[in-house]
Amino acid sequence: MGPDFQYVWQHEQLGTGHAVRMAQEALAGRQGDLLVLYGDTPLIPADTLTALVALRRETGAAAAVLTTRLDDPTGYGRIIRSEAGAFTGIVEHKDANPAERAIGEVNTGVYCFAINQLVPALARISPRNAQGEYYLTDVFSLMTYDGAQIATLETGDALALMGPNDRVGLAGVEHCLKKAINEIWMLQGVTIVDPAQTYIGPLVSIGNDTVIWPGTILLGATKVGSDCVIGPHTRIIDSVVEDGCEVQFSQVLAAHLGPENKVGPFANIRPGTSTASQVKIGDFVELKNVQIAAGSKVPHLTYLGDALVGRKVNIGAGTITCNYDGITKHRTIIEDEVFIGSNANLVAPLVIGSGATVGAGSTITKEVPAHALAIARSRQENLTGWVAPRERDGK
Amino acid sequence: MGPDFQYVWQHEQLGTGHAVRMAQEALAGRQGDLLVLYGDTPLIPADTLTALVALRRETGAAAAVLTTRLDDPTGYGRIIRSEAGAFTGIVEHKDANPAERAIGEVNTGVYCFAINQLVPALARISPRNAQGEYYLTDVFSLMTYDGAQIATLETGDALALMGPNDRVGLAGVEHCLKKAINEIWMLQGVTIVDPAQTYIGPLVSIGNDTVIWPGTILLGATKVGSDCVIGPHTRIIDSVVEDGCEVQFSQVLAAHLGPENKVGPFANIRPGTSTASQVKIGDFVELKNVQIAAGSKVPHLTYLGDALVGRKVNIGAGTITCNYDGITKHRTIIEDEVFIGSNANLVAPLVIGSGATVGAGSTITKEVPAHALAIARSRQENLTGWVAPRERDGK
Amino acid sequence: MGPDFQYVWQHEQLGTGHAVRMAQEALAGRQGDLLVLYGDTPLIPADTLTALVALRRETGAAAAVLTTRLDDPTGYGRIIRSEAGAFTGIVEHKDANPAERAIGEVNTGVYCFAINQLVPALARISPRNAQGEYYLTDVFSLMTYDGAQIATLETGDALALMGPNDRVGLAGVEHCLKKAINEIWMLQGVTIVDPAQTYIGPLVSIGNDTVIWPGTILLGATKVGSDCVIGPHTRIIDSVVEDGCEVQFSQVLAAHLGPENKVGPFANIRPGTSTASQVKIGDFVELKNVQIAAGSKVPHLTYLGDALVGRKVNIGAGTITCNYDGITKHRTIIEDEVFIGSNANLVAPLVIGSGATVGAGSTITKEVPAHALAIARSRQENLTGWVAPRERDGK
Repeated sequence: MGPDFQYVWQHEQLGTGHAVRMAQEALAGRQGDLLVLYGDTPLIPADTLTALVALRRETGAAAAVLTTRLDDPTGYGRIIRSEAGAFTGIVEHKDANPAERAIGEVNTGVYCFAINQLVPALARISPRNAQGEYYLTDVFSLMTYDGAQIATLETGDALALMGPNDRVGLAGVEHCLKKAINEIWMLQGVTIVDPAQTYIGPLVSIGNDTVIWPGTILLGATKVGSDCVIGPHTRIIDSVVEDGCEVQFSQVLAAHLGPENKVGPFANIRPGTSTASQVKIGDFVELKNVQIAAGSKVPHLTYLGDALVGRKVNIGAGTITCNYDGITKHRTIIEDEVFIGSNANLVAPLVIGSGATVGAGSTITKEVPAHALAIARSRQENLTGWVAPRERDGK
Repeated sequence: MGPDFQYVWQHEQLGTGHAVRMAQEALAGRQGDLLVLYGDTPLIPADTLTALVALRRETGAAAAVLTTRLDDPTGYGRIIRSEAGAFTGIVEHKDANPAERAIGEVNTGVYCFAINQLVPALARISPRNAQGEYYLTDVFSLMTYDGAQIATLETGDALALMGPNDRVGLAGVEHCLKKAINEIWMLQGVTIVDPAQTYIGPLVSIGNDTVIWPGTILLGATKVGSDCVIGPHTRIIDSVVEDGCEVQFSQVLAAHLGPENKVGPFANIRPGTSTASQVKIGDFVELKNVQIAAGSKVPHLTYLGDALVGRKVNIGAGTITCNYDGITKHRTIIEDEVFIGSNANLVAPLVIGSGATVGAGSTITKEVPAHALAIARSRQENLTGWVAPRERDGK
Repeated sequence: MGPDFQYVWQHEQLGTGHAVRMAQEALAGRQGDLLVLYGDTPLIPADTLTALVALRRETGAAAAVLTTRLDDPTGYGRIIRSEAGAFTGIVEHKDANPAERAIGEVNTGVYCFAINQLVPALARISPRNAQGEYYLTDVFSLMTYDGAQIATLETGDALALMGPNDRVGLAGVEHCLKKAINEIWMLQGVTIVDPAQTYIGPLVSIGNDTVIWPGTILLGATKVGSDCVIGPHTRIIDSVVEDGCEVQFSQVLAAHLGPENKVGPFANIRPGTSTASQVKIGDFVELKNVQIAAGSKVPHLTYLGDALVGRKVNIGAGTITCNYDGITKHRTIIEDEVFIGSNANLVAPLVIGSGATVGAGSTITKEVPAHALAIARSRQENLTGWVAPRERDGK
């Protein structure tokens, strides 16, 4: 929850009452409300907590207890009420008599306390019980014994209060959160072709009329613009994808894609990459720490690393920036309107001037002046007397 | 629904009765049945509509109304019946008294009318109601008042009548359609490993004993043959895939794959591509507007664009057709039984004659005669006194 | 079930009794229990079968019948009992009278027999019934008529007894098995981000704290270690992946990945490949029958086939082993600490000695001595008077 909160550590585990007691020093001299809830129930809605606090304040009760009803309440503490319906206490399942076990209303373990009423009650609880633990629920009998009122709020959404106890439960909770997040985005104008196969992290934002195809995973501080088409089978983490982009069968990590980019299928965009508008990153392309200006194309089978690419550049298939000499990485600068032929090697550090052309199959090791044609290849020879091994062996 | 239908536009939205009135001119002089249904309920089965029309005809009723029963009918128009059970009218939820609100049978909004009885009734409805709208349901009271009979057909499949009102609903409807389409293909002999993760468009056809792995999306006018293995993680749109093909982790757009092709993993087959039988398109291969004859192989890391490839050709890894000079695309012709070495550049326009060989690493700029060996590369030199930067720096 | 079992073939299909009769010869002289069950009900738990056998033994009954209760028992044989509740026989649905049809307890078709009581009863059943078939269920009336006792075991898990009759049912059964297998691994300490999108075969094993992302398919005799990250969108078949590996957006077939390898995105690792520890196989890389020693890197756009790669080797992007001359495959040996430049062609058979360097864009056709620099390329020329077609045409 970040550094804006104060954290208190319960080193020994001596019960729920003991856990809250750990906060006693931090609470000293404070007034107002203390919300007590579990750390492992991620599905509980903020609205429910807000309502519980509001109930405590409005009623002036010493505490407000969140309750729910279960078809099978076995194992849960039951809510005991007077004939008039007033809360009188909580009885743990193992201490409950048959009549009490028949009660379906159970304690969820979520409470809002008036701090000034909790602190003295907390000081009085003791571990004299079967478990030898300090039960937080003991404060309710102490409070009601002293004539204080305890309010209760019953929620119908028992599922939201479940905490996963193993990885099956964890997957179940993640499924619920995934569904809820996807519904939020659909209601805000995002088309999700199959919400069951779309994974959107809690910090992600997505613009209107973006369409998300199945197998898409959006995580971290990712921001996808409007009118994009994302997926299928795409993962984007900690990246910005501006309006009108298409990203399919690809991975994008810690990158920034400008408007109307087309990415993939099968592109791998790595950290430090940023593109301007209308850039095309095609199939089997890896970009690592590359900045590309507007209108440039890297259509296929290319590795660009540690490079700066100007406007309206065309990178031929098979182009490789040789950015690594075995020790350090060097930078390649490709200026505006350059045309790189296929299977070219650009040995960094290197500058290719604006409007220059690199011939297909060339290994470029030194600067290319603007508008020059750089070429480094052998003349083609056609040997007509030659017999190929596959012919010779009669295959 | 295409150009074979006549369309009528309701420019102002003055109610359902007004909507049907818009068709009055188109209906002039016509006899027979008029089926009225919503445009946003895609799940309604054709069988249900056929049964409704048949009921209208067989009973000679002025209209047949499709009804259903809901556990919670709140918001829906209720079907009012006489003690004998005859339909007497529809009462909207907000106009219904408590006894009427207790009725569970509701109007679905789907009707079959005898045109000659609908037209005069439609002329008599008025917008004198709370909403100021022309209600189509008003025609039923007019008809029954005039002594006409109204037939009803109750369907148990209330879900099929739901129309999505937002993108969550849209995803729900698509899920139902996906499930139904997948079941049709499974019952016709297609193995779908996980129907929840398989997306088959309504115009797609698939042959017997084809196996579809998860993450597969088949859309448009795609036709997949028998005994194919498609997916995982594959998208095929507007393409033909003939019998016995394997296509995995790949995308195929507007292409035609001949019998027993093997495609992928990670191939991108783009429009205008067609292959004959037993062609292999391996990993990291892009084909764009390429025709490939039987038995040829493009196994890896290749871009072929605007090319014609003969029979039993072998294309080495890293081969690139340099089809683009910065202005126009040119064509490469590779005749039968050619062998292209690795990392070759084929600078189009270019013809490589049958049986020719291109040496690895060659940039081929002019025609290669049949059976010739074309080579364009420098002799290897081994410099033994040289110390690599990574060695020099003691790394 | 393998060669440790004896199989008996029912060539003609003359009923369930006839099927068991086929085993009569194989049973001759045997004592003990015979478990009879269907071949098409894969979901039945081993525990249920064990309990059925135990019941037969403990009660000394001639047979124990597994029963269940169905809300709609239509079509199933009903369990008939005496007033005291003792099993007296099974009546097929079509032979049942209205009172019998009201019975909800049905025969599952799973039985445990005392062999010495089954064999004589089996000899006495006849096909004198409407179907002209030998019913196995006829043995129960024969046994009870002779005074033998029949025990019954009722299971509440009717779903587990369903056998798929078409591919829709098959997909349903596979869904149940997938869910069950995934839950086993989650409870054993594997994090499965979305169990609905994870496919783990029955022979696969997975270590603790491995995380599996959606779209992952693990099949065959695959063994994944601990602390791995597998997926998304990855298929691994018949392979070993040791501890601490990451494999994403990739396919691995019949390969062995050593500890702490990083694979993908978009790698294709084919049979015969094995790697030592801390090997990196990056994007758009195909390995086929390659052995790679510790610490080596094949980061991008590479095809290695039939190669042996030493320790701490760096393979530049675009490197191709030219292992195929059109007839046979040849082997490439790259010794320790070699550095291969980008877009190099390594024409096999070939040895590159330890510490050697291959210049970018070189086609290497003959041995490179240890620590040498091998280079095969033309000098770069910059033609400055040249006008590119795209400039000439004013584009």
